[in-house]
Amino acid sequence: MTTDPLTATCPLPRTDTDAVLMGHGAGGRLFAELLDTVIGPIIGADPVAEDAAVVAVDGVGVVVSTDSFVVTPHDFPGGDIGSLAVHGTVNDVAMRGARPVALTLAYIVEEGFPVADLARITASAACAAAGAGVAIVTGDTKVVERGGADGIYINTTGIGELLPGAVVTAAGADPGDAVLVSGPVGRHGAAVMAAREGFAFDLRSDSCALNTMVEDMITAAGRDVHVLRDATRGGIAAVLNELAFASGVGIAIDESAVAVPDQVAAICDVLGIDPFHLACEGTLVAVVAPDAADDVLTAMRARPEGRGAHRIGVVTNTHVGRVTARTALGATRIVDMPLGEQLPRIC
Amino acid sequence: MTTDPLTATCPLPRTDTDAVLMGHGAGGRLFAELLDTVIGPIIGADPVAEDAAVVAVDGVGVVVSTDSFVVTPHDFPGGDIGSLAVHGTVNDVAMRGARPVALTLAYIVEEGFPVADLARITASAACAAAGAGVAIVTGDTKVVERGGADGIYINTTGIGELLPGAVVTAAGADPGDAVLVSGPVGRHGAAVMAAREGFAFDLRSDSCALNTMVEDMITAAGRDVHVLRDATRGGIAAVLNELAFASGVGIAIDESAVAVPDQVAAICDVLGIDPFHLACEGTLVAVVAPDAADDVLTAMRARPEGRGAHRIGVVTNTHVGRVTARTALGATRIVDMPLGEQLPRIC
Repeated sequence: MTTDPLTATCPLPRTDTDAVLMGHGAGGRLFAELLDTVIGPIIGADPVAEDAAVVAVDGVGVVVSTDSFVVTPHDFPGGDIGSLAVHGTVNDVAMRGARPVALTLAYIVEEGFPVADLARITASAACAAAGAGVAIVTGDTKVVERGGADGIYINTTGIGELLPGAVVTAAGADPGDAVLVSGPVGRHGAAVMAAREGFAFDLRSDSCALNTMVEDMITAAGRDVHVLRDATRGGIAAVLNELAFASGVGIAIDESAVAVPDQVAAICDVLGIDPFHLACEGTLVAVVAPDAADDVLTAMRARPEGRGAHRIGVVTNTHVGRVTARTALGATRIVDMPLGEQLPRIC
Repeated sequence: MTTDPLTATCPLPRTDTDAVLMGHGAGGRLFAELLDTVIGPIIGADPVAEDAAVVAVDGVGVVVSTDSFVVTPHDFPGGDIGSLAVHGTVNDVAMRGARPVALTLAYIVEEGFPVADLARITASAACAAAGAGVAIVTGDTKVVERGGADGIYINTTGIGELLPGAVVTAAGADPGDAVLVSGPVGRHGAAVMAAREGFAFDLRSDSCALNTMVEDMITAAGRDVHVLRDATRGGIAAVLNELAFASGVGIAIDESAVAVPDQVAAICDVLGIDPFHLACEGTLVAVVAPDAADDVLTAMRARPEGRGAHRIGVVTNTHVGRVTARTALGATRIVDMPLGEQLPRIC
């Protein structure tokens, strides 16, 4: 008896664990299990998490998203924990087809942390917010003892308004839709790993705000933009798997169509990591109606952050809940949901 | 030459420090200085911080507040870090005269933290949110290495809608207004300190949601409710000083009118702490038009959490920016803004 490569997947390790693991925070299968079995049932939340929720306030749909940032090191080529905390949340709000309008900024700082570093990180966050056209409207600062926060942790929560004509949800992919990506993948994860390991690669994180590009995409195609996900923790592998599951469809991608920068590929070779599992912080996956794909790609490519936008695959009604990739050799492999433990504290 | 007790205040220690101090996180003068001199100017924020901001989303005023919770121990009589994280943010939203409608819940958890404790804290947060009538709509979980988060830190951000007829702001106090407090003071801070020190006092934190009582107060008096502040970090001393400064008025209170439970007074005696500096987490200060005071007190007393509501003083047009207390002996003392270092990690 042979194993069908399209249904086989590596077994999840025993995760009826009694302790939280680093991998529970990596946005992969371990986190999904924690959400499905522990947190979700208690909160009563939909386990198919979107990047952001939509809340009715005085009859208006308000988009809300929250993220904490614990990246180490605090500084990496192309950004720092301050700019990342802004871009990450701005993008999560935008991924619901929304215009982010306000951010909260909450610090947990360690006693003895240099005030100069706090000022520098704050300035970086403020600059990133101004660049995205989003106001930082309120905040909080807590201080814990030395050793209690690895310097600084940051939470940002974003508030946004739905763009006119946008109907964007992780469950919106239809068979036949085109799968697009806004640029080369894996740059954030690789840049942070290189900074952490002291590798002298010429590589910058892609960390940037995607909200303006999203507005242009919605303007170009309206409700034909079905799904938007920024490929953060777990990389494009995680977001493609999540949207396949949420939409009840299959995703078939052409592996050679996914742009992986040489430096990212080199770091992945050294560390034994799949580039599809590496986090991006300024690169999104879009699922759009087939007739709208060219217009959306044109809108993306008109922006610097979408210059490298390209089509990587198609939504299918086979292999539901799975992501398959056609390799350069013509074989088909499963693009699995990352387990989660490889790259802790990448954001 | 004698010193006028109404203008003298203890000098602030050198705070052009190059490192963050525990006191910077305690909501007192050190934090105010950090906000005024470092964070505020960079963000471009109003240094007179309200408990919550009001943001225009599609033309609707949305109230937003964020807080991180690092309380130690995680469990204390009357609550835990999960319920506290909900009550604290629900109350901050309510203090703008708003009805909280949604919360985000973001965890930073340490590797090795028991999943059972995570579930218990999540259940406590969910129960507190249900009790307040507020939905937890989205969240985040990050995991850091052992020792990196003292078990768990929680950020909550609250979203609310302004109550019809409410015009509540820290700058709204007018001379002649009545100063009310919703119950006895210092219970949260004293309960946490007792738990931390292992004192066997029969004392529970006042941690609870105040949003329903606030709705009843606004229903009773509308725009005659001028200021609402929950007396968290820094206690009633901090909030009275903040509102005196923000409104450009003086506050004169009758010290003996402020209810201090015997157990709170006993702990303050042991630790050498002013009960007016002790945090509350379910007790608010209200400044209301004089003619509305009785109606507001009636509305407060009709709720269990406001049963002990009473009048403690009056807003003046003298001693602007200062809080003075008439002592039991008939003397007048300054109620100073706490410096901030006495009670770290109380919330």
